[in-house]
Amino acid sequence: MNVTVYRKAHFNAAHRLFVPEWDDERNAQVFGKCSNPNYHGHNYELEVGVTGPVDSTTGFVISLDVLKKIIKEEVEDPFDHKNLNVEVPEFANLIPTAEHIAIVIWNKLRTKIESHLDISITLYETPRNFVKYNGAS
Amino acid sequence: MNVTVYRKAHFNAAHRLFVPEWDDERNAQVFGKCSNPNYHGHNYELEVGVTGPVDSTTGFVISLDVLKKIIKEEVEDPFDHKNLNVEVPEFANLIPTAEHIAIVIWNKLRTKIESHLDISITLYETPRNFVKYNGAS
Amino acid sequence: MNVTVYRKAHFNAAHRLFVPEWDDERNAQVFGKCSNPNYHGHNYELEVGVTGPVDSTTGFVISLDVLKKIIKEEVEDPFDHKNLNVEVPEFANLIPTAEHIAIVIWNKLRTKIESHLDISITLYETPRNFVKYNGAS
Amino acid sequence: MNVTVYRKAHFNAAHRLFVPEWDDERNAQVFGKCSNPNYHGHNYELEVGVTGPVDSTTGFVISLDVLKKIIKEEVEDPFDHKNLNVEVPEFANLIPTAEHIAIVIWNKLRTKIESHLDISITLYETPRNFVKYNGAS
Amino acid sequence: MNVTVYRKAHFNAAHRLFVPEWDDERNAQVFGKCSNPNYHGHNYELEVGVTGPVDSTTGFVISLDVLKKIIKEEVEDPFDHKNLNVEVPEFANLIPTAEHIAIVIWNKLRTKIESHLDISITLYETPRNFVKYNGAS
Amino acid sequence: MNVTVYRKAHFNAAHRLFVPEWDDERNAQVFGKCSNPNYHGHNYELEVGVTGPVDSTTGFVISLDVLKKIIKEEVEDPFDHKNLNVEVPEFANLIPTAEHIAIVIWNKLRTKIESHLDISITLYETPRNFVKYNGAS
Repeated sequence: MNVTVYRKAHFNAAHRLFVPEWDDERNAQVFGKCSNPNYHGHNYELEVGVTGPVDSTTGFVISLDVLKKIIKEEVEDPFDHKNLNVEVPEFANLIPTAEHIAIVIWNKLRTKIESHLDISITLYETPRNFVKYNGAS
Repeated sequence: MNVTVYRKAHFNAAHRLFVPEWDDERNAQVFGKCSNPNYHGHNYELEVGVTGPVDSTTGFVISLDVLKKIIKEEVEDPFDHKNLNVEVPEFANLIPTAEHIAIVIWNKLRTKIESHLDISITLYETPRNFVKYNGAS
Repeated sequence: MNVTVYRKAHFNAAHRLFVPEWDDERNAQVFGKCSNPNYHGHNYELEVGVTGPVDSTTGFVISLDVLKKIIKEEVEDPFDHKNLNVEVPEFANLIPTAEHIAIVIWNKLRTKIESHLDISITLYETPRNFVKYNGAS
Repeated sequence: MNVTVYRKAHFNAAHRLFVPEWDDERNAQVFGKCSNPNYHGHNYELEVGVTGPVDSTTGFVISLDVLKKIIKEEVEDPFDHKNLNVEVPEFANLIPTAEHIAIVIWNKLRTKIESHLDISITLYETPRNFVKYNGAS
Repeated sequence: MNVTVYRKAHFNAAHRLFVPEWDDERNAQVFGKCSNPNYHGHNYELEVGVTGPVDSTTGFVISLDVLKKIIKEEVEDPFDHKNLNVEVPEFANLIPTAEHIAIVIWNKLRTKIESHLDISITLYETPRNFVKYNGAS
Repeated sequence: MNVTVYRKAHFNAAHRLFVPEWDDERNAQVFGKCSNPNYHGHNYELEVGVTGPVDSTTGFVISLDVLKKIIKEEVEDPFDHKNLNVEVPEFANLIPTAEHIAIVIWNKLRTKIESHLDISITLYETPRNFVKYNGAS
């Protein structure tokens, strides 16, 4: 009898999409305005889902206070008001597309949430563009 | 060729999270401010999903008027403007966490919706905390 | 390592729900106010999901610029500010319920998006009524 | 010590924008796709504001149950699931732009709400286009 | 050259609307389901507006960090997860309608925000019911 | 009989808040994480309001197509996917706080919208922080 519990969080960050091996023209062709060398930014909205059995005593899948603290330490503190390309080590050699950011967040949370619980990540880059990642399968 | 039809509804209610066998200190540790003996409350937002084949004549999975009426009778009328712990019999011996409320709603709707149709429940306790339940599997 | 990328779009349209073989009374019984012969309308909100592997060079499942263009040509241009019953050929003999509109959109996009990518359609007819379709299975 | 109380409501309707004295070309120039002779439609979201002193016994400016009933009778019942041009008498000789619909609603409510209370109308035609009207001054 | 800066906050609380001098029947007549003696509750969404000149050095009307801290101390800490009737002294002899809650919040903030700045309060009791208060005039 | 017409738009940008004459410590004290020298960013949501009489023939205060085009040329094209401090000349010597961005936008639109129409600007920096500016008075 599995239930999924969701917690929303958010962070504001600057980023730039480009492949260092490509010249400016090719980067502009593939990434458009997102390849601007001076960076642009977003209010990222994050939804973390945790799926598992409901504890018969507490009625919880996971304590939201615990989940909130994990998201703060693993995502909000290191990502908020940061330049993702320059200041977040995970993106030193990885383009910070919404897809990659979601995978990085899933991997970080996977090490902190008990392994019998499944994790899903929904990341809004803008209100009209978003991605979902449920882990490698 | 299955489609899922969703209908949103809402109810406002008071509740309190606590385990009667525990002392105040332990309840406060696990449930934090939610264990306040004087109750607090929420605007619960509910999304009911019904999945099944599309009727070739009407183009409907289920009539939304029918679904709306079932949700009103099974959820809104008994839960809205109520104290869940005190006035809703299903929670006489069950902590009204979002997880448990979603399971109770699913069970109530299951008896009223034709059995060849699947049901899913999404329940927002606040805009940042919500749960999903698709039934026992 | 599949990720789903979502893009939102919208169109405003008029429609009417009725079965031509039925008399007015039966249409009113099944479709209520939606069978009004003078039409009514909606702001349809559309979410298109595309699921597949992340390209290791670009960090994209699919370029959002490409997806945006496909949605514009296949859905927004032919549906926006139109009378679905009268002006959109797919509904000449198909009731334009939300279920049918979602299936029609899925079928149109399926011909334009590479076949190794899965497609899902969420269509909001109003903020409280919406449908999801992931293709025939 | 005036407070403003707001109540939201909504209705779905079809409409068409055109000046009967103009030819099709001029109508298309001024009203674009909105002049489509086959109509299009919207989910209109309405916010009615009522401003006045707070009753010292009830703590109310106006009972929301009373306000809700007035909005239902004056706006939702006559406008919902209707073709504004064809079925709503106020628009027999008045183009149903958002501006005009807001003025018509304000005038209808003015006759039903006590005269010492001020009225304001906000009408969303789409989530990105809306109008406000506070009465003639 | 005045600008208004807004900060949103929220709190969840239980309340009950009733006039102690009235019998149950009259309370039910005026307050409907809101007079339930066992309480019900809401997710209150609060928008605080502060209007004044823009500081020529910082570009701020008021530091949002300062405003956020004032709202936390004056509203969120004393109101969140509380029973407004029972646990918040301001409502010991004042019905906690949305109108009264907005006035109480305005009065509390007025003592903490510099007097050359104007204050406005918007309080959502539900997504469809809200009130605005700009102070006595 | 004045009506206000609103149009929403949006742009994504990077920025940094700091006073060049101040040292890092003082900038951090006043601007907190917003003074990060590597920039951070936002999805800015903009609402432009235009107030004036309703044209008796068209039923419009201003054509939304015209307003949309002005906003695109004056705000979206020069601000979207840009670094406000580095690439937008208006902020070469002006801190890009939300207050200043709103004033800059108002001033730009004032030169393009007929002078008998009033203009108001609401700018969301995040869903919880926003500002309003109605022009110098």
